[in-house]
Amino acid sequence: MQIINEPQNALNQAIQGIQRAYPNLQWVPGTLGCYDRNFRDDQVPLIAGGGSGHDPAHWGYVGTGMLSAAVMGQVFQPPTPQEIIKVTKQVTKNHEAFFIIKNFPADVAAFTTAEAQLTAEGWQVGHCIVADDISVDNASLKQRRRGVAGTVLIHKILGAAAARGASIAELTDLSASLITNIHTIGVAASGARIPGQTATSFSLQPDEIYYGVGIHGEPGYRREPFQSSERLAQELVSKLRLNFRWHAGDHYAVMVNSLGGTTPLELMVFNNDVHELLDLDAVTVDFNKVGTFLTSNGMHGLSLTLLKLAHPSWLPALQKPVTTAAWPN
Amino acid sequence: MQIINEPQNALNQAIQGIQRAYPNLQWVPGTLGCYDRNFRDDQVPLIAGGGSGHDPAHWGYVGTGMLSAAVMGQVFQPPTPQEIIKVTKQVTKNHEAFFIIKNFPADVAAFTTAEAQLTAEGWQVGHCIVADDISVDNASLKQRRRGVAGTVLIHKILGAAAARGASIAELTDLSASLITNIHTIGVAASGARIPGQTATSFSLQPDEIYYGVGIHGEPGYRREPFQSSERLAQELVSKLRLNFRWHAGDHYAVMVNSLGGTTPLELMVFNNDVHELLDLDAVTVDFNKVGTFLTSNGMHGLSLTLLKLAHPSWLPALQKPVTTAAWPN
Repeated sequence: MQIINEPQNALNQAIQGIQRAYPNLQWVPGTLGCYDRNFRDDQVPLIAGGGSGHDPAHWGYVGTGMLSAAVMGQVFQPPTPQEIIKVTKQVTKNHEAFFIIKNFPADVAAFTTAEAQLTAEGWQVGHCIVADDISVDNASLKQRRRGVAGTVLIHKILGAAAARGASIAELTDLSASLITNIHTIGVAASGARIPGQTATSFSLQPDEIYYGVGIHGEPGYRREPFQSSERLAQELVSKLRLNFRWHAGDHYAVMVNSLGGTTPLELMVFNNDVHELLDLDAVTVDFNKVGTFLTSNGMHGLSLTLLKLAHPSWLPALQKPVTTAAWPN
Repeated sequence: MQIINEPQNALNQAIQGIQRAYPNLQWVPGTLGCYDRNFRDDQVPLIAGGGSGHDPAHWGYVGTGMLSAAVMGQVFQPPTPQEIIKVTKQVTKNHEAFFIIKNFPADVAAFTTAEAQLTAEGWQVGHCIVADDISVDNASLKQRRRGVAGTVLIHKILGAAAARGASIAELTDLSASLITNIHTIGVAASGARIPGQTATSFSLQPDEIYYGVGIHGEPGYRREPFQSSERLAQELVSKLRLNFRWHAGDHYAVMVNSLGGTTPLELMVFNNDVHELLDLDAVTVDFNKVGTFLTSNGMHGLSLTLLKLAHPSWLPALQKPVTTAAWPN
């Protein structure tokens, strides 16, 4: 059961509920997109988006110091290029924008098509494509490189840069550097739900977990019976270790993210397990967020994101207070 | 399945995880309690607590402008008087404190016993007993008056008062006035889980909901098949209307709280339904929070709290920024 009314009206009704709670978000008619009413056009607007169902992403990050606007589509489906263009044109009169895109083919197509059309109209538009997921496809053995929870850290650091006046070229360079230093891997204990559908995206046995799933319920790389939080931490940290090849004394930001249906108690037990493993490798954690940041509409499970703090400006950018619904200062 | 290790270690390991994420919380050895490292003893310390399993309550509200300390017990069991005393003595040297207690017999007994002992030692201690739950017992037809999610609004408003120097007498008067103006009622779509136990506190059919449950999985007043978010809003708002007997033009704060396993999409659809009903009564909502504030360890369900803004200082106190893990500014 989901606590909604007619499933086909769920997103529009949720937006009305959001509007009541966060009147600083201005929703754009004919879209599932919103922008920050306090945006003053004195910086390059940062615009992110993708499917709905990842709440509090992406609308929860719209506000001073983070995103200028967010454009959502239907549940787990990106917005159309026309919707992206419509919202973008409402945000700014400066004919400039920067898009933060998650690396899913449909998302990339929608945002780059919008960018091409805006460019043809004389706009300057930059973008980055976040590809933090290090899950591996079992058939090809290639990394899937989907854009997942690490995207929220990109919002935060680019948000700080844009607020201090970074140009599109600077945002492009900064995002390229960030994206190579950020990796995420997730694990699910249930599938993801779509409003109006009783079946979840995949089915697991009662005590089974699934490593490496995507945020729309895409398959992972291995199922196994659940043993312990510590075992999950060992698996996820070992995959991150392989990718980062860290050294003692390296500095990292750590984000533990609920995929939607995970309790704070569970998240905190897992966070402790992750820290104990990082301690063993003498990795220093300068920044640690634990919470519900980018979800799969109520999925029981979590993801672990590490960002290597390769540049001295990144930590202060993460720490800088912002005014948004979903980023606790 | 719960993502933990040995159930008997879950709380201690969660605390270690919290400590990693929130180093400003100083945990007191031998207790499940913590205080704000930045507390400067220039105000009456506000101390709340109760059972664990209500995360982010109560540790998530410890910080500048809200609670000075929080003392938790085992899951759904209050701390002992000794634990409360131990934490209280760590917080302050001034021999003064104010306890915010939720109205459950075991909680009241633990905190008032601690208060009596501290008083015998020469301390000045005040307290309030929050009794916002308007659920009715089916047998006696009496209101249960348990202390539930409205407690978080009490933390917030008393926190602002204590920070500006309110005395224990002033906090006592303010809390008495607040408590008569705050009512909550909840609805569950699942029972509450206890770490290490597979059974939940009560069992519901797949599409059944239960009105008026307590935050430890205590029974409610009626079960019925789930129909819609709107139907839930009608039931909860009608009960609140009966208690408040509001008039057109009255001003209220509204809090929609996930009991743990409810998605932001669901909360926002429900929030919209609540507002539409309040609009029909021409009640003005000056403050609206929607999120996960006081839970029943992952229960699917929600509670609705209304606070009648009977005094002009209450709205600014709710709006005042704080530095805590769980109260978004």
